[in-house]
Amino acid sequence: MKPVLYGYWRSGAAYRLRIALNLKGIEYDQVAINLKTGEQKSDAWLAMQPQGLVPVLKYGDAMLMQSPAILEWIEERWPQPALLPSDPLERCRVRAWAAIIGCDTHPVQNLRILKAVGDDLGQGPAGMKAWAHRWTRDGLAALETLVAVHPRSTPFLHGDAPGLAEVYLLPQLVNARRWEVDLSAFPTLMAAEAACLALPAVQRATPENQPDAE
Amino acid sequence: MKPVLYGYWRSGAAYRLRIALNLKGIEYDQVAINLKTGEQKSDAWLAMQPQGLVPVLKYGDAMLMQSPAILEWIEERWPQPALLPSDPLERCRVRAWAAIIGCDTHPVQNLRILKAVGDDLGQGPAGMKAWAHRWTRDGLAALETLVAVHPRSTPFLHGDAPGLAEVYLLPQLVNARRWEVDLSAFPTLMAAEAACLALPAVQRATPENQPDAE
Repeated sequence: MKPVLYGYWRSGAAYRLRIALNLKGIEYDQVAINLKTGEQKSDAWLAMQPQGLVPVLKYGDAMLMQSPAILEWIEERWPQPALLPSDPLERCRVRAWAAIIGCDTHPVQNLRILKAVGDDLGQGPAGMKAWAHRWTRDGLAALETLVAVHPRSTPFLHGDAPGLAEVYLLPQLVNARRWEVDLSAFPTLMAAEAACLALPAVQRATPENQPDAE
Repeated sequence: MKPVLYGYWRSGAAYRLRIALNLKGIEYDQVAINLKTGEQKSDAWLAMQPQGLVPVLKYGDAMLMQSPAILEWIEERWPQPALLPSDPLERCRVRAWAAIIGCDTHPVQNLRILKAVGDDLGQGPAGMKAWAHRWTRDGLAALETLVAVHPRSTPFLHGDAPGLAEVYLLPQLVNARRWEVDLSAFPTLMAAEAACLALPAVQRATPENQPDAE
């Protein structure tokens, strides 16, 4: 049974799922929900995802939502290659790195929050940019610090292949560049990203390589 | 080996861990990091948690951070009683409900974000309150909608005992009341909370029952 990914080429959370599915070699179909034209606020989409968010992963009759939950499901459904280490404390470490992006960085400056800051709080485009910079730098700096002190023998954040932390990191770096955040302070994260992007499975997941990319 | 919880009575993320540990009957020690006096920004604490956040769970030599990661570790380390269903798709459903709070609700209006809105964006106390209301209502409404359409035979959100979704929900409701959010639109969530608070394990975890409560 082939999963169907309802996403958008520029959605960071959809990009997470594409990386995970591709790394595991899972075939899936894609349906684009155009965030630019507001399709996520349509009645049809709200009936599928009441928050008006993407992505959703359809698997048979099940509509799976919330990328952190879907990623855990993907890991349970197709355990190999693993995105999480086998050692319980190391699993916790990698999940914590993922949560620094998934909880403390991405949600506080995603599209709906930036619109609220720019429009509703009257901060305008410059205020939106400053807000995006602040929390992106904050989150990436924490992750850089934690990863850099951890012993590693490859450019990947943990182990010898991309894992859950990279699944969260790569979309956040795309977002950071879109806002012109200076990434030179995060050499460990940049090296991990470069190692990931050298893999065809990850290349096929990037925003610009999606059918709905503009 | 007894875990040590570094937290704060009013920290919602520390409250999550107390509920989970108590439901599983795990004994632990507590160390208070006083967020009111700014202890989380001290050099000593930043050396333990570079983001300056609580909670941290110390287990032997390991310092576990990020409550979503710690909760998964607790579930793996002490599987019974389970906080997640055994069916993979139902696990995904409960984790998604948890993520609606853990990613889309809590982080966007926690203390550091509210301070930034109130002080740095010049919105003042009224603006902070409006920001807290907006995203709290948004997140709770999504959760209420999703849970209410899901067949249940108990007041709990899923199954016949509190699980991961309640672990996230209860602290968010404390936070909502602190900001005087009208909760009458969320009867399903309120009923689940009441059923949880009738349990001694949950009662012992509430903010007001902690040694550092003021």
